[in-house]
Amino acid sequence: MSSTVSPLAPTDVPEMPAIAGVKLATAAAGIRYKGRTDVLLAIMEKGTTVAGVFTRSKCPSAPVEWCRAKLGRGQARALVVNSGNANAFTGKTGRQSTALTASIAAKAVGCQPGDIYLASTGVIGEPLDATKFDGVLDDLAAKTAPEGWMDAARAIMTTDTFPKVATATVKLGKAKVTINGMAKGAGMIAPDMATMLSFVFTDAPISAGALQSLLKAGVEDSFNAVTIDGDTSTSDTLLAFATGAAAAHGAPKISRASDPRLKAFVKAFHAVLANLAEQVARDGEGARKLVEISVEGAVSKASARRIAMSIANSPLVKTAIAGEDANWGRVVMAVGKAGEPANRDKLSIAFNGIRVAQRGARDPSYDEAEVSNAMKQPKIAIKVALGLGKGRDRVLTCDLTKEYVAINGDYRS
Amino acid sequence: MSSTVSPLAPTDVPEMPAIAGVKLATAAAGIRYKGRTDVLLAIMEKGTTVAGVFTRSKCPSAPVEWCRAKLGRGQARALVVNSGNANAFTGKTGRQSTALTASIAAKAVGCQPGDIYLASTGVIGEPLDATKFDGVLDDLAAKTAPEGWMDAARAIMTTDTFPKVATATVKLGKAKVTINGMAKGAGMIAPDMATMLSFVFTDAPISAGALQSLLKAGVEDSFNAVTIDGDTSTSDTLLAFATGAAAAHGAPKISRASDPRLKAFVKAFHAVLANLAEQVARDGEGARKLVEISVEGAVSKASARRIAMSIANSPLVKTAIAGEDANWGRVVMAVGKAGEPANRDKLSIAFNGIRVAQRGARDPSYDEAEVSNAMKQPKIAIKVALGLGKGRDRVLTCDLTKEYVAINGDYRS
Repeated sequence: MSSTVSPLAPTDVPEMPAIAGVKLATAAAGIRYKGRTDVLLAIMEKGTTVAGVFTRSKCPSAPVEWCRAKLGRGQARALVVNSGNANAFTGKTGRQSTALTASIAAKAVGCQPGDIYLASTGVIGEPLDATKFDGVLDDLAAKTAPEGWMDAARAIMTTDTFPKVATATVKLGKAKVTINGMAKGAGMIAPDMATMLSFVFTDAPISAGALQSLLKAGVEDSFNAVTIDGDTSTSDTLLAFATGAAAAHGAPKISRASDPRLKAFVKAFHAVLANLAEQVARDGEGARKLVEISVEGAVSKASARRIAMSIANSPLVKTAIAGEDANWGRVVMAVGKAGEPANRDKLSIAFNGIRVAQRGARDPSYDEAEVSNAMKQPKIAIKVALGLGKGRDRVLTCDLTKEYVAINGDYRS
Repeated sequence: MSSTVSPLAPTDVPEMPAIAGVKLATAAAGIRYKGRTDVLLAIMEKGTTVAGVFTRSKCPSAPVEWCRAKLGRGQARALVVNSGNANAFTGKTGRQSTALTASIAAKAVGCQPGDIYLASTGVIGEPLDATKFDGVLDDLAAKTAPEGWMDAARAIMTTDTFPKVATATVKLGKAKVTINGMAKGAGMIAPDMATMLSFVFTDAPISAGALQSLLKAGVEDSFNAVTIDGDTSTSDTLLAFATGAAAAHGAPKISRASDPRLKAFVKAFHAVLANLAEQVARDGEGARKLVEISVEGAVSKASARRIAMSIANSPLVKTAIAGEDANWGRVVMAVGKAGEPANRDKLSIAFNGIRVAQRGARDPSYDEAEVSNAMKQPKIAIKVALGLGKGRDRVLTCDLTKEYVAINGDYRS
């Protein structure tokens, strides 16, 4: 948790409403940090369904393995999140730690351990002492309340400089349903997934299967379209919980993601995911610029995505932006190294709406002073037109600053 | 060209001998820099063969396209290199510029433009005014001499902090032959190729076809096994020239790379390439640590290479090394994101010979103070054992420091 809030932090922080069927509490268990909360307990009503998307790392953390194994049951009663220790690469001890945490939580909540979902974030490779949860989770279970969403988002932060929340209210049938989400990000953020931890809750009555489909589709242009440093965490976890409590005031029960009654809900659900993902980019470690990279004219959307990611992950592009330099030559370099179809002589590049290159050479009307001025903005939009086909895509990233190096050179010690 | 020499610069700089059939000269043409040389002309005797390996960028520079087109002829009479401007992404102007440069050089040397090889390094996207070579190349041709290898290596530098040369003398048949090489690197260094520019010269009589085979094989574990920032230049060029002058004192003419008489030569040739490639890593922009990453126990050499590169290109691993932090958790992360077969619970990791993790967890005998001390060394060896198969590989990189960000945030403006 940094003392300086990112200059890119959203200025409008929403009032987070309650979600029927969800109660929250946080505590300071002293897992690693001093003087701050580091444990979140969310208790959900019976009948809550769950869906999840996880890191594609071949070396996932113990909590990721735990959640994956339980997801087939499709039901959840509680979520336990700790910050400060990722319980990743902790071998047998890590598995014992997740089992013990789930067992302590299940006793505190009054459910089966298999209904407990776990997420941990922080240092990798240090054993997580689950006995620290003993007592703490009992206390938390007793004091959970429908409020406290900002506190919850704060408890899961590591090097984040601001808590990340988003909310939406939408009609499902004739009933009002609510979607609340939180996320933590900062470093080691790359697809897939693009955030270490994010949790989304709704009172809409949606089956686990339908929720899983919604989540999988929703992640593609939100969390999977964000990169900070190309490094994929061993702990990336996105969980969605649907309590179904809105059924009591008439929301229809949904069992298929393709149900036409779900249309407005899907839009709002995706918007919450996209909002959280953008906040992750806005809080990239050391970030001073939010960078949006749009690629059009590629041979396909997948090709456009790979080119956009090649630009977004290029240290040379990212340091140029940190230096407020419209160095489009480095964008050309990043297009060229992506390995995707590209024709140098058809390429056009614009920074914040000012075209600097066209058809393989510098734009003759290109005014260095005008572009330099545009580069001082906190948001930089890089647009690349390939002129080959109709594939287009968009990803978000941030600049690479000396602060990123400072944060990550000093993190563990 | 930085004012501060990398602390990783080699302390032993070789005396560079002459190569029969090669003469060099440099000049300050004022292409971009003030008060330093920026043009190299190397003239080779008639009968010189040539081989080349180039960037795989889909947006190569105009000189790369020029060299590729001429390579089929297999013969060379001169090499013209300029620093300060890469003549990349310069469209039609770029092609005109290479043609004009070659034509000026051919006139100065007295040969066909097709026997002229060109390389440019520096800023991308700025037109290169080839008329600046008019007169300059005539003067240079008149003053070329067999000496001046260090001056040549200096003239091709951009953000390099020291000139990079290597030499070897070896028997071919009963005759002594010499191999001289130079390179420039610094940033935008990644396979394939791993250097922006490198030129190797020999007096051995080797056919163009055999030389091309040697070069292609030699690059695999040298330049292609080095990465600074994962960014591949549009200009990466490695050229080898064989004058054949050693035939006059009895060196056998070689027409096949598999010729058994070539054995010692191949070894020396590969050593020169490896030496130059290591110097490139030692002069990575802002580098304070040389990092060697060895992966063993992978399912294949190719898999080991991809895992090693995933570690070498991870900003989080590189910043941890800059911070002298043996953060092996980030190495696990980088193994996990490589997408290659890996079993977390079989993984072992060592820093400078000290094992910190074994079989998926922290090594019980791991002593933080001992490892912290080891991390203060200028060279850091990271060894990862996967325990799956017999595939092994090794790559070189450097740390990621605040200086890298400073250099690349301020480079163009």
